[in-house]
Amino acid sequence: MKKKVINLGLAGFGTVGTGLARIIQENSDWINRRLGKELKIQKVLVRDPGKKRSVIPGPETAIVTDPQDLVHDPQVDMVVELMGGLETAHSLIKSALKEKKHVVTANKALLAEKGNELFALAQEQGVGLYYEASVAGGIPIVQTLKESLSGDRIRSLTGILNGTANFILSEMTRKGQDFETALQAAKDLGYAEADPSLDIDGLDAAHKLVLLIRLAYGVDYPLNILPVQGISGASSMDIAMAAEFGCTLKLIAQVREKSGHLQAGVFPALLPNDHILAKVEGPYNSILIDGNAVGQVMLYGQGAGDLPTGSAVLADILALARDNAVPNNTGFLEKVLPRAEVIRPELAVSRHYFRFTAQDKPGVLAAVAGVMSEHNISIAQVVQRESQPQGGGVPIVFLTHKAQAEAVHKALGEIDRFDFTIAPAVHYRILG
Amino acid sequence: MKKKVINLGLAGFGTVGTGLARIIQENSDWINRRLGKELKIQKVLVRDPGKKRSVIPGPETAIVTDPQDLVHDPQVDMVVELMGGLETAHSLIKSALKEKKHVVTANKALLAEKGNELFALAQEQGVGLYYEASVAGGIPIVQTLKESLSGDRIRSLTGILNGTANFILSEMTRKGQDFETALQAAKDLGYAEADPSLDIDGLDAAHKLVLLIRLAYGVDYPLNILPVQGISGASSMDIAMAAEFGCTLKLIAQVREKSGHLQAGVFPALLPNDHILAKVEGPYNSILIDGNAVGQVMLYGQGAGDLPTGSAVLADILALARDNAVPNNTGFLEKVLPRAEVIRPELAVSRHYFRFTAQDKPGVLAAVAGVMSEHNISIAQVVQRESQPQGGGVPIVFLTHKAQAEAVHKALGEIDRFDFTIAPAVHYRILG
Repeated sequence: MKKKVINLGLAGFGTVGTGLARIIQENSDWINRRLGKELKIQKVLVRDPGKKRSVIPGPETAIVTDPQDLVHDPQVDMVVELMGGLETAHSLIKSALKEKKHVVTANKALLAEKGNELFALAQEQGVGLYYEASVAGGIPIVQTLKESLSGDRIRSLTGILNGTANFILSEMTRKGQDFETALQAAKDLGYAEADPSLDIDGLDAAHKLVLLIRLAYGVDYPLNILPVQGISGASSMDIAMAAEFGCTLKLIAQVREKSGHLQAGVFPALLPNDHILAKVEGPYNSILIDGNAVGQVMLYGQGAGDLPTGSAVLADILALARDNAVPNNTGFLEKVLPRAEVIRPELAVSRHYFRFTAQDKPGVLAAVAGVMSEHNISIAQVVQRESQPQGGGVPIVFLTHKAQAEAVHKALGEIDRFDFTIAPAVHYRILG
Repeated sequence: MKKKVINLGLAGFGTVGTGLARIIQENSDWINRRLGKELKIQKVLVRDPGKKRSVIPGPETAIVTDPQDLVHDPQVDMVVELMGGLETAHSLIKSALKEKKHVVTANKALLAEKGNELFALAQEQGVGLYYEASVAGGIPIVQTLKESLSGDRIRSLTGILNGTANFILSEMTRKGQDFETALQAAKDLGYAEADPSLDIDGLDAAHKLVLLIRLAYGVDYPLNILPVQGISGASSMDIAMAAEFGCTLKLIAQVREKSGHLQAGVFPALLPNDHILAKVEGPYNSILIDGNAVGQVMLYGQGAGDLPTGSAVLADILALARDNAVPNNTGFLEKVLPRAEVIRPELAVSRHYFRFTAQDKPGVLAAVAGVMSEHNISIAQVVQRESQPQGGGVPIVFLTHKAQAEAVHKALGEIDRFDFTIAPAVHYRILG
């Protein structure tokens, strides 16, 4: 696209649509540095134009209620379908592709049902039908399978693909709650919809798995023959028993390849606690891929939400809006990148660990603690051990609260110069 | 590239080069399905053409020793630089770009030093200089920062980017070994080179961090002003003390952004054990990204090795060899994807968890165990609890060894029909 302004036609202005609008507004300078073009939400298709909205799609955005107004507007360069549902979204995307407009969608249900038809149409028309946001929100799994692992044969893919179900199972596990209580908590926190059946019956994860199978194996796995089991039967007793055996209950979407044949399904399963997916908790998603070259690769992040999903939609928009004539080497347009503005490392703030080795005599701890206090370094924990044999001295370990590296280095320098100091202090920052 | 055969000129045939050749041979059908073209290793540049090699680059590959023979050969469509080092690789890549050949490289040291010059040259020439394999082996971090998070502002990036250092610290932590013993183990297992100084002094991680800063922030962070501290001073005493405080020692590469300024460095640091990077062990790498839209995203995988790194090199080759005129929607060339060959779910093999609820009377356990035995299901663990109040029955939980789902379902059906069975069995597969 050679134009300087890319006009987006946005179908749907719910959670993800408002998230996208916010990111485009907040990160506009940034987008311009990467794209060299302005993104403008030119038209938004909504059901109820009178509804009060906390986010405005854009200063000059037209609000329309007829999908035809969006799709057939020659000013709209790209259609972003975030309305969900099947029939209207289906005909909207078809019309957009026929008009040779790129389409970005988060509609996993539609692509799982009609993927073969829609992708074939996009290819015929020579336009993009991108869908990173359809699977696992902000986790770049579509791009990873389509591009980064394109030379691998995928032996298996195992995912936690539904944040609502995962949140419910996490709550049941952590708090010993029964299913209904945890479901209510998920609704109260906005993680579950009023009708949560798509999530807890496993069908949402099934839609996503069908898309991942397309990407990993280049085949169409019909949704209606995929074995799907949800979590509504989950009982806190089994979760507690499983914990005794060192296992955690998770809703798993999995496909395994054997001699060109696929074994796939969505089902609750127990993971041993040392399994890399066992610690994926709450609304997070994760996907573990086993490729015949790359080995095990795991991706982790937020599987839903306005901004994470909006981030994935925006990445697709940028990829399609970019002029692909020149390979994208650095992600930025500048021929030479400017020099970084650097913060002196001495200004870094973190918690700290020190170990001193001192002679075993009175006053040592007081002197050391005094220096720390002079430099405003607040001590969180201290451990002093017995004196080591052969005059090895007494090890004293301090954990501090947050302090600036500069103050810490000064204090350590003073402590190292004490007579009773046997060896220079060992010092590590504590992150997180 | 419109050609049907893409001729690769491979500079260097060490670990990664042989890995790449193996993947191209083993996955050739697969590559053809995605690319519609054949990849041929047409020429290989080596230092010693007489050296015995266990992998042959290709049936018709010419072996050369002069870089000019590779770069200026009009038959070579793309140059793949896997020789490492600075001077020769630098002039080889410059010559290739000037010849308008795409270049794929794994040379982090060179790009960290000369990135600004080489990327500018590639852009002038309108060709690709791709380098996914330079950072974290098979983990698709370059692609993720360049494409998938292109609309995000990255607030921070924290990585475990050197597998050798991480292996050494993991061994010290797990086995209480001192640094020298763990380093020797790393050498014995091939994780550390004869001269491991680049890895343990932190410079290798620093090269990678400089590349990630370019991708995340679009700036040049000069390597010579990056604070870098290695792990050679690490002592098992500090690792043991840190464990008492619930922390693990890791070699960290980190950059954080504050008001457009960057705080960056490579340093050993303590991570609380519940930090998402604390459990990254052995030769694995991982990167945690915090974006202002996507939130936390984490990628994990093998940071080195012939096949994982070869996988990343191959993905770059495929991206550059593909004809970008049409957006890549599915990752495959077929207009309509073929239907999946499906394995019946009853054939799945895994361990299983069952919970039965039975009347509290003699013979129950014997009867249930008898049915399992008839179906060749081998029992790994059994727990029977006290009878529940109000006639709730006795819960009995079995963990099995690996068994086929079909046998399990038959056995459960029989057990559910016993007179003493109060409620149908609860059943979960155990993965991993």
